[in-house]
Amino acid sequence: MIERLEIGVNRPRIDLKPVTGILGGLIFFLGASMLAPVLVALLYDEASWSAFLLTAVSAMAGGAFLFIVFRPKHEIRIREAFLIVSLAWFVGSLVGAFPFTLSGTLDSYTDAVFETMSGLTTTGATILGGATSHGFVNPAIENIDKSLLFWRSLSHWLGGMGIIVLSLALLPLLGIGGMQLFQAEYSGSKSDKLTPRVQETAFLLWSVYIGMTAVQFILLWAHPSMDWFEAINHAFSTLATGGFSTKNASVAAFDSVYVDIIITVFMFLAGINFAMHYRLFSGNASGFFRNREIRFYTFLTVIFILAISAALWISNSYSIGDAFRYGSFQVVSIITTTGFGSDNYAIWQPLASFLLFLLFFTGGCAGSTGGGIKMIRIMIITKNIAREFRQLIHPQAVIPVRIGDRVIETPILKTILGFFVLYFFIFAIGSLIMSSLGFDLVSSMGASIASLGNIGPGWGEFGPIDNYAHVPAFGKWVLTILMLIGRLELFTILVIFTPWFWRN
Amino acid sequence: MIERLEIGVNRPRIDLKPVTGILGGLIFFLGASMLAPVLVALLYDEASWSAFLLTAVSAMAGGAFLFIVFRPKHEIRIREAFLIVSLAWFVGSLVGAFPFTLSGTLDSYTDAVFETMSGLTTTGATILGGATSHGFVNPAIENIDKSLLFWRSLSHWLGGMGIIVLSLALLPLLGIGGMQLFQAEYSGSKSDKLTPRVQETAFLLWSVYIGMTAVQFILLWAHPSMDWFEAINHAFSTLATGGFSTKNASVAAFDSVYVDIIITVFMFLAGINFAMHYRLFSGNASGFFRNREIRFYTFLTVIFILAISAALWISNSYSIGDAFRYGSFQVVSIITTTGFGSDNYAIWQPLASFLLFLLFFTGGCAGSTGGGIKMIRIMIITKNIAREFRQLIHPQAVIPVRIGDRVIETPILKTILGFFVLYFFIFAIGSLIMSSLGFDLVSSMGASIASLGNIGPGWGEFGPIDNYAHVPAFGKWVLTILMLIGRLELFTILVIFTPWFWRN
Ligand SMILES: [K+]
Ligand SMILES: [K+]
Repeated sequence: MIERLEIGVNRPRIDLKPVTGILGGLIFFLGASMLAPVLVALLYDEASWSAFLLTAVSAMAGGAFLFIVFRPKHEIRIREAFLIVSLAWFVGSLVGAFPFTLSGTLDSYTDAVFETMSGLTTTGATILGGATSHGFVNPAIENIDKSLLFWRSLSHWLGGMGIIVLSLALLPLLGIGGMQLFQAEYSGSKSDKLTPRVQETAFLLWSVYIGMTAVQFILLWAHPSMDWFEAINHAFSTLATGGFSTKNASVAAFDSVYVDIIITVFMFLAGINFAMHYRLFSGNASGFFRNREIRFYTFLTVIFILAISAALWISNSYSIGDAFRYGSFQVVSIITTTGFGSDNYAIWQPLASFLLFLLFFTGGCAGSTGGGIKMIRIMIITKNIAREFRQLIHPQAVIPVRIGDRVIETPILKTILGFFVLYFFIFAIGSLIMSSLGFDLVSSMGASIASLGNIGPGWGEFGPIDNYAHVPAFGKWVLTILMLIGRLELFTILVIFTPWFWRN
Repeated sequence: MIERLEIGVNRPRIDLKPVTGILGGLIFFLGASMLAPVLVALLYDEASWSAFLLTAVSAMAGGAFLFIVFRPKHEIRIREAFLIVSLAWFVGSLVGAFPFTLSGTLDSYTDAVFETMSGLTTTGATILGGATSHGFVNPAIENIDKSLLFWRSLSHWLGGMGIIVLSLALLPLLGIGGMQLFQAEYSGSKSDKLTPRVQETAFLLWSVYIGMTAVQFILLWAHPSMDWFEAINHAFSTLATGGFSTKNASVAAFDSVYVDIIITVFMFLAGINFAMHYRLFSGNASGFFRNREIRFYTFLTVIFILAISAALWISNSYSIGDAFRYGSFQVVSIITTTGFGSDNYAIWQPLASFLLFLLFFTGGCAGSTGGGIKMIRIMIITKNIAREFRQLIHPQAVIPVRIGDRVIETPILKTILGFFVLYFFIFAIGSLIMSSLGFDLVSSMGASIASLGNIGPGWGEFGPIDNYAHVPAFGKWVLTILMLIGRLELFTILVIFTPWFWRN
């Protein structure tokens, strides 16, 4: 793991050996994690155990070999770190895709990679349950092996673990937008800050993540509509803000107010910075409740729940109870970028559906497992608008943007504004490519933002009860890349494709 | 007119007297300009002459009275200037609307104000030709008096005059986003810059504007498909990048390649900074052709023409000639925010229509009569993305954004990024309000961006062959306000509604 970032001497500008070595280590762990679906397959007497075992053993052997041969002998430098992080999700998807094709469940490796990337990036978009453009009919979610369902949920959960450590321990070291705020804003004071050692930080955060998953698992299992298998899968998907379900109809299939409430609450929690959860469990409740981002996130969630519930109640055929039940579930599902469905929002009345569409451009708190633009950035750019107006009235004054007591320095402000612009540029390019494949305006924009924001379901042809099976292979790769770009906060991966990355 | 901005002593913080006086002067001139449609009405023997004369005389009398009583005795200060500019378009629309209702053409004053604001802001969205939500059927464009058609086009042309002097002479003094660049970027060097005196600047720019209108008028009149009346109306609409036509089918009604070409060329010219046109006519051709914004604008126009023409040709039933003809007309019409139609883009194949949709978020050059985000801002935010990537690789370096030789200072960069964010926020709020009135996603977003960007026609229910008649009155006022906000570069008007404006 990265301990310090430092320019070495007498080494190539970018040394691919330690990059390969660390990726080997990650492949080893991914392979090891596949032993879990092997057990599930054996438990349910499914033939796909062999596909998982073969992939697991190959990945562990290959990964171990690469790690042993190329393991880092020096400290990792900034450019190598960018390469490792970007390639980790990509290589993980290429490897994790094999059980889908080896088991004969999917015909196309492209589809298998799409599904795995969708899992590891916690997007939750699926190609199951529709005919591909090559004419192969992908089986419905209910018709595939339980071991594969488990692997889908597990890929979410592992991806969630990855993103927690990435966003809270690694990206701040790389100077990626907004996360530099972590030290001061999230931890309250310097003395109170999380340990700077990445491994120790990761361990603490993962304990919280595992603990919350366990609690949700038990609460879901306690309900008669869910067996242990459905409970563990939905707990994995929820904490990772992933959205893969064991049912084609998603959470709506369980038709239980209790299940809806449990999942809504845990989605909301999963949308909060895990460092804050750690702080809360360590007894620092006031630090948690005074956190500006959590307050803003709660405020926005409540406002949208009230507005959407009211819109559904007033102008549709929903009772006030149902309007609130489906409205609040769907608001939390989209604002956290989980993408679970308890109702078909694509046929909601115009105001409710537009309000939900706006939430596709938000995302949970920084340091959560959620994707998207995220609350802290939305807070800062909103405050910056107010600053611009004041500046206009007082042209000579120096007016800072503040979050609580903290002044947002100009370079960070510029980076956050730049992130916003870049996010919309990439969203536009993604939509453009989808439209070039013949999809209409709403479907194209929906698929693009649902992938870039790691949400999953989109709009039009890609609504909550549809799937991505019929997208041509090229389009599936584009959406796969959008998921990766969104998951890695844009800059982490895109910087690799700039000329400055490879120059001295 | 504003000569200098200076804080006075012993005067109220915001002195409404000179604001009223200057607005009186503007009302006088607006009234005087209505004598032209009186002549048109008399020429064509139309009863509406009396509606125009009554409004003209009242406006001239009332305006003159206000100007004489309240004319400025001191220099105008910054906050008063904001008030004057914002109220000018608003009051102008309230006054200019009367002939529509007094003549009995429109039943609703709301509709009349919508049409006049659409004219004066050079938006070109119309409520003619459809039934209102109150059940009154607004007459089709072809069925109203020629004097009213002339007034619509004239309102564009006057609004275009207003915006040229506003964007090139007044807003830079107020420090409104991007225009501070004017001095250095547009004029090349200090010694070469336009005279700082507003009245002299205005006179020079207007000469160019009037001259170009005259040339286009003659070129259009020369074609057998257009009589003098149609030629003058379309020349007014083109130079103002307005988009009102004398035909319901817009430019398509003339079905002439010649007319399409003339209008395409003049729309393109109207999308260029008028200070640059003045420079070109003064013999400084190299300053014109070396201008970075003009180059970028030309580049983007050519790229989109090629892409859309190719998309139309390859996958639709267009010949290569028709694809290029309709593609190039529509690209220039939308990138300049004119909004003329020579073809129904709403039924184009997905890629062509999405490419055109992207252009709804551009706009011509700063200092043109076009609305929208504008080229210079798009250039700068694009370059800023590249800067962010370089910054990531070289965290310690100071990397500026440059346009040509010029470094964009951080405060200006922040203002431009802030403009972009605010533009999307307002677009979202406008779309949200439209969706609350029951319009679908695409129609709501289309109406919002078509109004905010001063384009005119939108998407869905508001496509190029539709109109805005059926929008409920509240929605029409919202769209009217969006036109005004967009036309005044957001900050000019919105600053008035901030608490800081009214505080000391
Ligand atoms: K998701
Ligand atoms: K227009």
